[in-house]
Amino acid sequence: MADRRVIILEAATRMIAQAGVRGLRVERIAEAAGVSTALIYYHFTDRAGMLRETLAFIADRADRYTMPDPDSLDARTVLEQVLLRELQDTEDVRENSTAWGELRSTAIFEDYLRDPLRESTRQWIADITELTAKALAEQSPSPVPDASPVPDASPVPDASTADPAVTTASTADPAAIAERLTALVEGLSERWLSGSIPLTRAQHMLRDSIRIELSAAR
Amino acid sequence: MADRRVIILEAATRMIAQAGVRGLRVERIAEAAGVSTALIYYHFTDRAGMLRETLAFIADRADRYTMPDPDSLDARTVLEQVLLRELQDTEDVRENSTAWGELRSTAIFEDYLRDPLRESTRQWIADITELTAKALAEQSPSPVPDASPVPDASPVPDASTADPAVTTASTADPAAIAERLTALVEGLSERWLSGSIPLTRAQHMLRDSIRIELSAAR
Repeated sequence: MADRRVIILEAATRMIAQAGVRGLRVERIAEAAGVSTALIYYHFTDRAGMLRETLAFIADRADRYTMPDPDSLDARTVLEQVLLRELQDTEDVRENSTAWGELRSTAIFEDYLRDPLRESTRQWIADITELTAKALAEQSPSPVPDASPVPDASPVPDASTADPAVTTASTADPAAIAERLTALVEGLSERWLSGSIPLTRAQHMLRDSIRIELSAAR
Repeated sequence: MADRRVIILEAATRMIAQAGVRGLRVERIAEAAGVSTALIYYHFTDRAGMLRETLAFIADRADRYTMPDPDSLDARTVLEQVLLRELQDTEDVRENSTAWGELRSTAIFEDYLRDPLRESTRQWIADITELTAKALAEQSPSPVPDASPVPDASPVPDASTADPAVTTASTADPAAIAERLTALVEGLSERWLSGSIPLTRAQHMLRDSIRIELSAAR
């Protein structure tokens, strides 16, 4: 028997991707999942609990389609594949990215989504930080900083007085590179999904940013 | 007498920033603006027309708070100020950015918002392209490409076979730089507004990206 908890989360993701979070009722998800509303309340306590779990579920599910090819040997190619696979015109990427963007934008108005959103984002950045650190290690014989946990805040250097040619800590820090690249993925993904740019353009911009970030970190 | 069309658009922006687009009724905007619903229909035909105009209104209004200091003489500082002023913890930036993000994410579900969204985004990128071209011209004695109109699509080079150290057209193209930086602003802005990162961190990431992009274009 399939796990009914997963079936509920899949139905919730699909419905959020189709029509958004706002106005989405537990009754309709129960109907789409073929379960009773009581079962949804049993597993998730309330609507907010279900949406929080859906956010984490979507983040986990993205690991499936962003997986690099098994024969990708160099870390740079792996990094590029994992990031670029967030921008694919397949049904599961569209559905997942649309639902993720919708929950993220709902979190601006609904406090209960903020903690799981922050946690899922932090986890994604941590994964990309690890791949970035490997790509940096590969391209440079000199030691690079370890992948450090994503800090909550850091002092803001005054760029106007700094020499722009100098490689600062942030330029070579895999965690900062990962944070910028994942934020760019989110911005480009939303432009693509809302019809402002074609997918090929979004992919092109992301590929160039990866190249520019890795070159700057040398 | 104040322009009642502007009063309506201000009320719509405020209400979208407070509670989102979905479920927002013309009657409530009329009430908040102190006008009749008939006047809203007279000016904007229908709810969709009003939301389309609100999107354009928000984009125009951002020009007010992103204006560079009058004594900023170098183009690089102007570029930095105009972009960083999208990430300020003031009431008008929060309101404008929240409403903009909400309309952008609604455009994924509502087709009638796509054309004005695409047009406002294109205009913003064109403005930043112009500032970027000036900043590039300033830092380099060699000629840089003119600020070209933002293309709808362009061929995607295969980064895996390209020499990452080579400066490609995209790396030095002010339109491509502007497109990446504005997409990053949107991604960082949404992370800030949804509570995933502190404002200072978002500013720091954006400042570093501007520096990295301009250095790569040398």
